[in-house]
Amino acid sequence: MTDLSSLPLRESLRGQSPYGAPQLDVPYMLNTNENTHPVPPQVAEAITARVATVAGGLNRYPDREFTALRERLAVYLGHGITPDQVWAGNGSNEVLQQILQAFAGPGRTLLSFLPSYSMYPLLAAGTDTAFVDGGRAPDHTLSADHAAEQVRRHRPHVVFLASPNNPTGTALGLETIEAVYAAQARNEAEGGHGAMVVVDEAYAEFALEGTASALTLLPGRERLIVTRTMSKAFALAGARLGYLAADPAVTDALRLVRLPYHLSAITQATAIAALEHVDALLETVEDIKAQRDRIVDTLRRLGLSPSVSDSNFVFFGRLRDAHAVWEALLTRGVLVRDVGIPEHLRVTAGTQDETTAFLDALGEVLREDPAAVVRG
Amino acid sequence: MTDLSSLPLRESLRGQSPYGAPQLDVPYMLNTNENTHPVPPQVAEAITARVATVAGGLNRYPDREFTALRERLAVYLGHGITPDQVWAGNGSNEVLQQILQAFAGPGRTLLSFLPSYSMYPLLAAGTDTAFVDGGRAPDHTLSADHAAEQVRRHRPHVVFLASPNNPTGTALGLETIEAVYAAQARNEAEGGHGAMVVVDEAYAEFALEGTASALTLLPGRERLIVTRTMSKAFALAGARLGYLAADPAVTDALRLVRLPYHLSAITQATAIAALEHVDALLETVEDIKAQRDRIVDTLRRLGLSPSVSDSNFVFFGRLRDAHAVWEALLTRGVLVRDVGIPEHLRVTAGTQDETTAFLDALGEVLREDPAAVVRG
Repeated sequence: MTDLSSLPLRESLRGQSPYGAPQLDVPYMLNTNENTHPVPPQVAEAITARVATVAGGLNRYPDREFTALRERLAVYLGHGITPDQVWAGNGSNEVLQQILQAFAGPGRTLLSFLPSYSMYPLLAAGTDTAFVDGGRAPDHTLSADHAAEQVRRHRPHVVFLASPNNPTGTALGLETIEAVYAAQARNEAEGGHGAMVVVDEAYAEFALEGTASALTLLPGRERLIVTRTMSKAFALAGARLGYLAADPAVTDALRLVRLPYHLSAITQATAIAALEHVDALLETVEDIKAQRDRIVDTLRRLGLSPSVSDSNFVFFGRLRDAHAVWEALLTRGVLVRDVGIPEHLRVTAGTQDETTAFLDALGEVLREDPAAVVRG
Repeated sequence: MTDLSSLPLRESLRGQSPYGAPQLDVPYMLNTNENTHPVPPQVAEAITARVATVAGGLNRYPDREFTALRERLAVYLGHGITPDQVWAGNGSNEVLQQILQAFAGPGRTLLSFLPSYSMYPLLAAGTDTAFVDGGRAPDHTLSADHAAEQVRRHRPHVVFLASPNNPTGTALGLETIEAVYAAQARNEAEGGHGAMVVVDEAYAEFALEGTASALTLLPGRERLIVTRTMSKAFALAGARLGYLAADPAVTDALRLVRLPYHLSAITQATAIAALEHVDALLETVEDIKAQRDRIVDTLRRLGLSPSVSDSNFVFFGRLRDAHAVWEALLTRGVLVRDVGIPEHLRVTAGTQDETTAFLDALGEVLREDPAAVVRG
């Protein structure tokens, strides 16, 4: 049996482990922030019907420019966004990787603010981009002043801002994004280089009332990129469709690094069918937000400290031994996420039944061990 | 209007143009080596039926290990290959990119032998891998001695060998692959490093009688990788499914660089459905080979010099002005490929009608200008 160590693997990968949120088959899977509501039957039928129309022609390469899909995505996003401002990939991970391939890479730097989406440092490593962590306040928030100061200090080539952030769930104020953008412009004005500022809005549709999207900041900001996904609000994690809106020059840049025909005809058909049923798909969003708010309220009553959530998940602290609680929940059939931050866990807001199962199981675990909660 | 030059694009990409085989809507599209036979109706129905079974569950992430698909691919490949030796991506371009991400990258070298598949240098550039061209004989063949000598001289980390080669169409003898493999082993034995040897068999199903696959060389060669695709023989270019067979340690390495959930549930379902109908899909292969042989014979009679073709396309020379002929064919509704090699063009073997249209058009063009053919 050959061992990986006998292959001429790149030095930077030696000893690494692959990304691996557990895919366990348990009754309540609340660990990867999926939309746990099945795709509505009429949407599943529409997807199947549209796939049927393209199946006979799969012998041909797909439209490399996925024109029809970009038109639909532009309409969905609104804010006056035109199809030439839209780009898509097989999941927003691929879109983010393409951004790094175009604007980062060897000798260049990605700045982000941890804890954040666990793929950011991995995407940097995969494109040989130096990763710098700008850090956050002890309560995991990110102020405009701190973020801008980090851009001024580290002079990155790309900045990733998750809004809402993952795993913490809270959206950024637009003033933070504006400050980061202004800071990179100042870096350039001083004779250095600017940065592409990427706002990852994977969970934007779950935002609390009054939270504004970075899409509103696009006009006049040619280096601003807003990424989205159909995995979450659209309940299409299995279809792998991430996308972005930016200046048309950005999509020109991404054409230089994307693999030809990267979006299959079936992926394009599936996404178009889903976008023709936006209302039916987004119906689940209100349900999920209600469960999310119920989780936040209940966790507070249990003495825990949930973060403000603009997403379909809740990050909460004050657990003396977070991993022990994670295990105790798993033995009760509830899989949540231990993101490796002491005293904290993250749970996806699922259906009403799933939420009840999680809250009941957690209540039981905490009752059995009254010392499990760190008193504030 | 923002221009690309005002964005902080990576230095290595400045001034580049995107990959772009023309996607023109003409009667006879014979320029991208697609299988021009539509997917048979019963296979299109099977794909649709299988997509219908997964559409309702698209809210969940797909099986990250695409277990069922790997099992089917292993059975199709035969040669005792097991599922843990199989890997897949969104087209073989993605699989090749993952190989470079794992085994090449900054400070490392990819050796290939041009003219070959036009994506190889682009994939190297996209992963910051140095690209070295080992060259070919004037007739575009690649001998074991020459190939091994180039491996000894350049000491690459990865070698790409297309068999059959694209654009020339001829398969490699196994002795060339064995010699390259032995040469990288000698490099390592002398205290240097070995190389991953990748045999790109995208067109393997179209091989002439008696051409052996590099799959037969896998046992005992832990650094040998054989890549395949469902785009060509399977008539599924639009579905984007490339795959490979190698030592299980190689698939472990690729897990370190693949984006999580890179293969959608719909892609997995489509490929599985196709693999359940291998016989129906591969029926077109014999037709295409017959047309390919007809093209070779006719071109010879026209005084041209077609290369030996183990593929679904024919590369031919002795055109005084290849681009003028390309244009003259296009005005007659026939799109072939000008691969930028003087005196040569490449044409895909399509259906009988398409082949007739191409041969008629070419005959007409050459009759109108008897000086168009360089006499041998």
